[in-house]
Amino acid sequence: MSLASRQLPTIGITLGDPGGIGPEVIVKALADEALRARAKFVVLGPQWPMLHAAGLAGVRPFWSALTSAASLSDEPGTPGACVLLDESPSNDPMTGASSRWPVSANARAGELSFALVERAISLAQSGVLGAIVTGPINKRAWSLAGHTRYPGHTELFAERFGGADQRWGMMFHASDVNARGHALNVILATAHVPLMKVGPSLSVGRVLDAIMLGTHACRDLGVTAPRVAVCGLNPHAGEAGLLGSEDDAIIAPAIEAACESGIDCRGPFPGDTIFTAAVRGDFDLVVAMYHDQGLIPVKLLARDRAVNMTVGLPVVRTSPDHGTAFDIAGKNLADPGSMRSAIELAIRAVQKR
Amino acid sequence: MSLASRQLPTIGITLGDPGGIGPEVIVKALADEALRARAKFVVLGPQWPMLHAAGLAGVRPFWSALTSAASLSDEPGTPGACVLLDESPSNDPMTGASSRWPVSANARAGELSFALVERAISLAQSGVLGAIVTGPINKRAWSLAGHTRYPGHTELFAERFGGADQRWGMMFHASDVNARGHALNVILATAHVPLMKVGPSLSVGRVLDAIMLGTHACRDLGVTAPRVAVCGLNPHAGEAGLLGSEDDAIIAPAIEAACESGIDCRGPFPGDTIFTAAVRGDFDLVVAMYHDQGLIPVKLLARDRAVNMTVGLPVVRTSPDHGTAFDIAGKNLADPGSMRSAIELAIRAVQKR
Repeated sequence: MSLASRQLPTIGITLGDPGGIGPEVIVKALADEALRARAKFVVLGPQWPMLHAAGLAGVRPFWSALTSAASLSDEPGTPGACVLLDESPSNDPMTGASSRWPVSANARAGELSFALVERAISLAQSGVLGAIVTGPINKRAWSLAGHTRYPGHTELFAERFGGADQRWGMMFHASDVNARGHALNVILATAHVPLMKVGPSLSVGRVLDAIMLGTHACRDLGVTAPRVAVCGLNPHAGEAGLLGSEDDAIIAPAIEAACESGIDCRGPFPGDTIFTAAVRGDFDLVVAMYHDQGLIPVKLLARDRAVNMTVGLPVVRTSPDHGTAFDIAGKNLADPGSMRSAIELAIRAVQKR
Repeated sequence: MSLASRQLPTIGITLGDPGGIGPEVIVKALADEALRARAKFVVLGPQWPMLHAAGLAGVRPFWSALTSAASLSDEPGTPGACVLLDESPSNDPMTGASSRWPVSANARAGELSFALVERAISLAQSGVLGAIVTGPINKRAWSLAGHTRYPGHTELFAERFGGADQRWGMMFHASDVNARGHALNVILATAHVPLMKVGPSLSVGRVLDAIMLGTHACRDLGVTAPRVAVCGLNPHAGEAGLLGSEDDAIIAPAIEAACESGIDCRGPFPGDTIFTAAVRGDFDLVVAMYHDQGLIPVKLLARDRAVNMTVGLPVVRTSPDHGTAFDIAGKNLADPGSMRSAIELAIRAVQKR
């Protein structure tokens, strides 16, 4: 065992919903030996969906299956090694390549995909995993399985790693948004909140948290002095109070506080013009006030290669920015680009820590 | 005078703020004889800023200056003819190419740019102009000149042409959003409203109006059976009520009513994913619920070629989707692409009527 391979991070990857495109994009992304050589990988999930996807994609299985995590910590593995921690449930409907998990929201799949995330979190907490990449889950399946408390992965990670007082954020990374390879990061000050509750949810502290969390995450990604732009809430950033008060009363003071702590932070800028400047390369991070303000540009710019990052937690967590895509699942049509980017970003962030 | 030239539409173009880039983009756009041949043009504004811009751009003045509109209606002109209706105020600070209008918001320029729009509206109402293209104004200059009632051109046009009961809308047109030349139109259900007032401003009738106005405007632009997508208001279009009620209670019934009247209308779709589908070519019109939801994608996609249209009025009105750009005014740096698109769209729309 060389020193170099010991220093490689161990990346956990949860399969997501076994009926969705998660297994397929994981198989296709990790089929690249050059990517596998950059870390050690532990995929958490039942093996049959992986074998099925590999068969359709013409990929020769590259993983070794383990049925117990006990040996994982004793076995640091070699570069390029990929372990599949086989978490097939006792009632697995897929017992061969000819049977399939349902390609729709169902409780059994929801229970499994939820358990995989819990398992990955506990392996990260015990130090076995350095970062977690999550495959796409179906929220209705989680809900059918009784896990109604979490709108998604982000909130589950936030609770398990920090509790209510932990400051965390939802950030998105889009690479190559212009011809010179500029990367754009977007962090949300509020996420899964009804739009009419966004204003009351904002405070100087909350906006400042988003600025600070995003700035630190950019540094984790190698941008040493990120240039930060903060969006206004209202049209034209409130037009000096004519179109709403939050821009001047809440957002501007948060920007001022960030500047005082040495961050290169400007705004509030009108939401409809700032992303053009960011794409041009003027900014590394945009702080958006709400879900669609940040995600409309991310999804337009990244064209299926966006990565979702949960920032501010003790563990690095990334995921592809797409869902289970049941409409194309099992057809070998899925593009692994976003999963690949999520894996690469996890490796980069965990190595900076 | 041939019959063909008599049928050419007459397009009025207001100069906008005389210190901004309006004169420059008008001169540069109309310098193209092929564009001028498609209509007759009446530019409203003082002549010196036009001469100054033409000098810097190396464009030979192509217009004839009139000081009275009286002769306009008797003089249908020839194709390619461009009349400048010289509206220099008695206190014009620019009396030669060496003096300049201030490159900042000021009351005198605000008074002038407001008067130019009023003049164009009255010429349209008396049938002299078939369409109006407005050059960029500065809202603070309007406000300094005492015109505080109008957030912008759109509201002034709406009041002069219809009054409170007139249904009108703010639509944006972005051409060539994909490699196959697809054009995307976006209409706003609400425009200059503080974000936290958007929910209370929405009603089934208001959303339906936006769908109908946008559909009719698309037909004016030559799309005979527009495919319409309607955005949700909340993240994930409300996620079945978990993230807000407006999507199900207000937007869905409006879509249903539009479908019943024969419009190909679908949604509500999550705001963050629908624009990717529209760019792919799946839709001709997206109905956005609020300013930034519609304008973030328009400005990212159109890259300075977006056109703003006021729809639902008896007159066609378009404008470039940029401001006075005082930072580059007078430097011969402005790109006339958006002004050119605004002129072309005005010609196309008025010919369909």
